[in-house]
Amino acid sequence: MPRRIDIDPESVERYLQQLARFGAVGPTGVSRPVYSPEWVAAQDQVAAWGREADLAVRRDAVGNIWSRLNGTEDGKVIVTGSHIDTQRPGGRYDGALGVIGGLIALSALKQQLGLPKRPLEAVSLCEEEGSRFGRTHFWGSRAIVGRIDRGEAETLLDYDGISMAEAMRSVGLEPAAIPAAKRTDIDTYIELHIEQGPILESEGVVIGVVEGITGLSWTEVAITGRAAHAGTTPMHLRRDAACAAGEISVFVRRLAQGMGGHQKGTVGRIELYPNLVNVVAERAMLTIDLRNTDESLLQDAERQLAAFLDRLAAQEQVAIATRSLARFAPVSFPTEMVSLIETTARELAFSCRRLPSGAGHDAQMMARLCPATMIFVPSVGGLSHNVREYTEPAHLEAGTAVLLHSVLRLAE
Amino acid sequence: MPRRIDIDPESVERYLQQLARFGAVGPTGVSRPVYSPEWVAAQDQVAAWGREADLAVRRDAVGNIWSRLNGTEDGKVIVTGSHIDTQRPGGRYDGALGVIGGLIALSALKQQLGLPKRPLEAVSLCEEEGSRFGRTHFWGSRAIVGRIDRGEAETLLDYDGISMAEAMRSVGLEPAAIPAAKRTDIDTYIELHIEQGPILESEGVVIGVVEGITGLSWTEVAITGRAAHAGTTPMHLRRDAACAAGEISVFVRRLAQGMGGHQKGTVGRIELYPNLVNVVAERAMLTIDLRNTDESLLQDAERQLAAFLDRLAAQEQVAIATRSLARFAPVSFPTEMVSLIETTARELAFSCRRLPSGAGHDAQMMARLCPATMIFVPSVGGLSHNVREYTEPAHLEAGTAVLLHSVLRLAE
Repeated sequence: MPRRIDIDPESVERYLQQLARFGAVGPTGVSRPVYSPEWVAAQDQVAAWGREADLAVRRDAVGNIWSRLNGTEDGKVIVTGSHIDTQRPGGRYDGALGVIGGLIALSALKQQLGLPKRPLEAVSLCEEEGSRFGRTHFWGSRAIVGRIDRGEAETLLDYDGISMAEAMRSVGLEPAAIPAAKRTDIDTYIELHIEQGPILESEGVVIGVVEGITGLSWTEVAITGRAAHAGTTPMHLRRDAACAAGEISVFVRRLAQGMGGHQKGTVGRIELYPNLVNVVAERAMLTIDLRNTDESLLQDAERQLAAFLDRLAAQEQVAIATRSLARFAPVSFPTEMVSLIETTARELAFSCRRLPSGAGHDAQMMARLCPATMIFVPSVGGLSHNVREYTEPAHLEAGTAVLLHSVLRLAE
Repeated sequence: MPRRIDIDPESVERYLQQLARFGAVGPTGVSRPVYSPEWVAAQDQVAAWGREADLAVRRDAVGNIWSRLNGTEDGKVIVTGSHIDTQRPGGRYDGALGVIGGLIALSALKQQLGLPKRPLEAVSLCEEEGSRFGRTHFWGSRAIVGRIDRGEAETLLDYDGISMAEAMRSVGLEPAAIPAAKRTDIDTYIELHIEQGPILESEGVVIGVVEGITGLSWTEVAITGRAAHAGTTPMHLRRDAACAAGEISVFVRRLAQGMGGHQKGTVGRIELYPNLVNVVAERAMLTIDLRNTDESLLQDAERQLAAFLDRLAAQEQVAIATRSLARFAPVSFPTEMVSLIETTARELAFSCRRLPSGAGHDAQMMARLCPATMIFVPSVGGLSHNVREYTEPAHLEAGTAVLLHSVLRLAE
C-alpha cells in the first residue's frame, strides 16, 4: 500500500504553532491548564478547525471536542485523538500533535476520498496531564470510559483550592451531566504522540510502534528523625532525616539499574524540615516514581523498595511512613492493533520499531473500552514536559500519515 | 575554696522565664531577632535588672548593654556575658543564660562582698545567631573587637531586605558611631552557656569546661544536571541532580564517620528543581556543614570533599559549583583560663569534664581580644535551636556559681 492520501507536509507544524499561541509562555512554552480561558480558547480553535474541515463537531459533558466524519455505513466508531491541556509550562507538541494529526487525517480523508465505510471521530481530550487537578489524570478519557465516580468533581481540588465542579461550571459545563460523556460505541482508538524520550532519535527511527504503556507506582515517603545541632551532636547519636533521604535516592537508582530492562526509578522531589545549613534535618518528604512494562517486575521493585525502607528505618533510627500517590498497572496493546501500525509504517516506507511508552497516556484509559494503540514520533534530545520540546516537521507529517493510513485501513 | 557567695537557687530560672516573655512563641519558644521591638524590650529589661542591682549600666554604639561593678582599683576589666537574640524561633536558654548568669553573679558579689579589687562587667550582646542578618554572626562582639568594616552596616541586609544601618537607626543607634563600641580595656572574658549537645547529660556531668571552639566550614553546592521525563528516560542517559545530591549527603556522613574524633559533617538543606514526582531533577542546591576542633583535620575534610565533588561531577555528568558560606578556624582557649574554670568547678564539688564547643559563640570573637573561655551546663536531650530546649534549674544555678567564683578569683 503506497501512500493513497496526501497531507500538506507543512500543515501539521503550522497548526501546532497556531494552537501554541493559546497560553504561550515565552517563545516556545505553553501553559494551558484544563478549563482555563487559554484552554477554552484552544478547544474553540480545535472546534473551528473541525467545522472548517466540514466535520460534525460537538462538545461533550466534560468538554472533550469531537469532530466526526460519518461513514457510508453505521456502526461503531474508529477514534483518534489526544489532549490539549499541558504541563505548567510544557511544550507545543505533547498532546497537541495527536489532536491536530487526527483532525488533519480526517480532513484529508474527506477531501480526497469522500466518506469512508465506517464512521471516524477525532477527539480533543481534557486534563490528561493532571497539571491543574494534581490527583487526577485522564479526566476526559475517564469520562468517556465511564470511570468518574459520582460526586468526584465536587471533591477534586486544583492547586488553588477550586473544585473540579466549580471549574467546569465556570466554562458552562454541568458536573451532574458527566455520565452523558460515556461512550459505548467506540470500536478502536489510535493516538499519535511525541515519544517524550530519546530512543527513536538516538536510533534514527521515524515511527515508534507502541506495544503498551509502562506501569507506574508513585510513593510518597515521609521520614521523621530528630532535629539536632550540626555542630554539637555526635555523628553516632544522630537520627538524620536528610541522610535517610539521600540513602533512598541512591538506592532507588541502584534498584532500577540492577533490575535492568524497562525498570525505571526516580526520586524527583525532596523537601527537608527545617532545611537549615546547621540543623540535622528532623523530617524529610520525598517521592519515588517506579515504572516497569511488566506488572510482576513492577511488584518486585515495590517489594524490594518496601524491604529497603524497613531496613533503613531500623538502621537510621528514623520513622518512615509511605503513601501511594498513584498506581497504574502496565497496559499491553492488542497484537492486531500493534501490527496494524507496524504494517502501515512499513508500507509507507518509514523506519519503525516497537517500544513501550514510559509515560502515561489517554490510550491506556481508552484501552479499557476498546482495542487501542499509539504511534510515536521522535522528540529531539528526548525532551519532555519542557518548553524546549521539539519534533521535526517531517516527523510530524510522517506520524500523521501513518495515523491516517492506519485509520483508513480500519474504516474501509 | 568552698562556696563563698550564695545565689538564690531559683533566681536564674526565674529571670530566664521573665526574659522569655519578650518574643514568646508558644509555651516555651522565643523569637527575638536583633533590633526588633521584642529584642529592644528584652535589652531594656536587662538594663533595668542591672540598675536594680546597683550596677552602672550603659548601652554601647551597637546596642550591647554593659552593667559594671567598679573595682577598688582601676585597670582592665573582667567581662562575662552572652547574647539575647535568638533563633526564629529558638528556646529560652541559648544566650540568655549567660546574660542573666553574669548579672546575678555581679549582683551577688556586690551584695555579699562589696567592691572587688578589679572592675567587672556583665554584657548582653547582639546578633550572635545571625538569625536576622544571615550573613553576619557575632555582630555585638565584632563591634567590641573592632572587626566591623566601615560601611558594612549599609550593605548587610536582613531576610526582608532591610539594611543593618536602617535597623540600627530604627532603635536609635547611629551606624557611623560603631567604632566607638570598640574596647581595648578588657582583661578576660568568660561566657556561661548551655551545651547545646548531649555529652554532659549522657555522662551525668554538671559542668563543661570548654577548651575551645570547633572550626566551621559551610559550603553551598549547586548541581546542574538535565531535566528529563521519569518514565521515558533510560537510567543510563540521565544526568540526575537529585541523585548527585543524595550521593553527597551519604558521602558527607561517611567522611565524618571515617575521620572520627571531633569531625562532624551535615547536609541540612536541599532544594531540587523542578521538584516534581515525575521529572528527573535538573538542579539541586544543598549545603554542607563541616566542623572540626583541629584546623589541619578540617582542611583535610575540605580537601576530601572537594576531591569527591570532582569525581562525582564526572561520574554523574553534572556540573557542580561550590561557594563558601562561612569559614571560622578552630579557637583554643588559653590553658590558664580552662584550668581556672576546672579548678573552680572542682572546688565547688561539681562534676566536670573538658570538652570542645561544637557551636560558635561570642567567646571565639572575644578571644581575639583577650584570654577567654566558656562554661557549659547540660541541655536535656541535647536539644538546641529548638523551642523545647531545657536545662534543669539546679544546673543553671551550678553554672552561675562556677561563673561567679571564677570571676571572683580573677577580680581579687
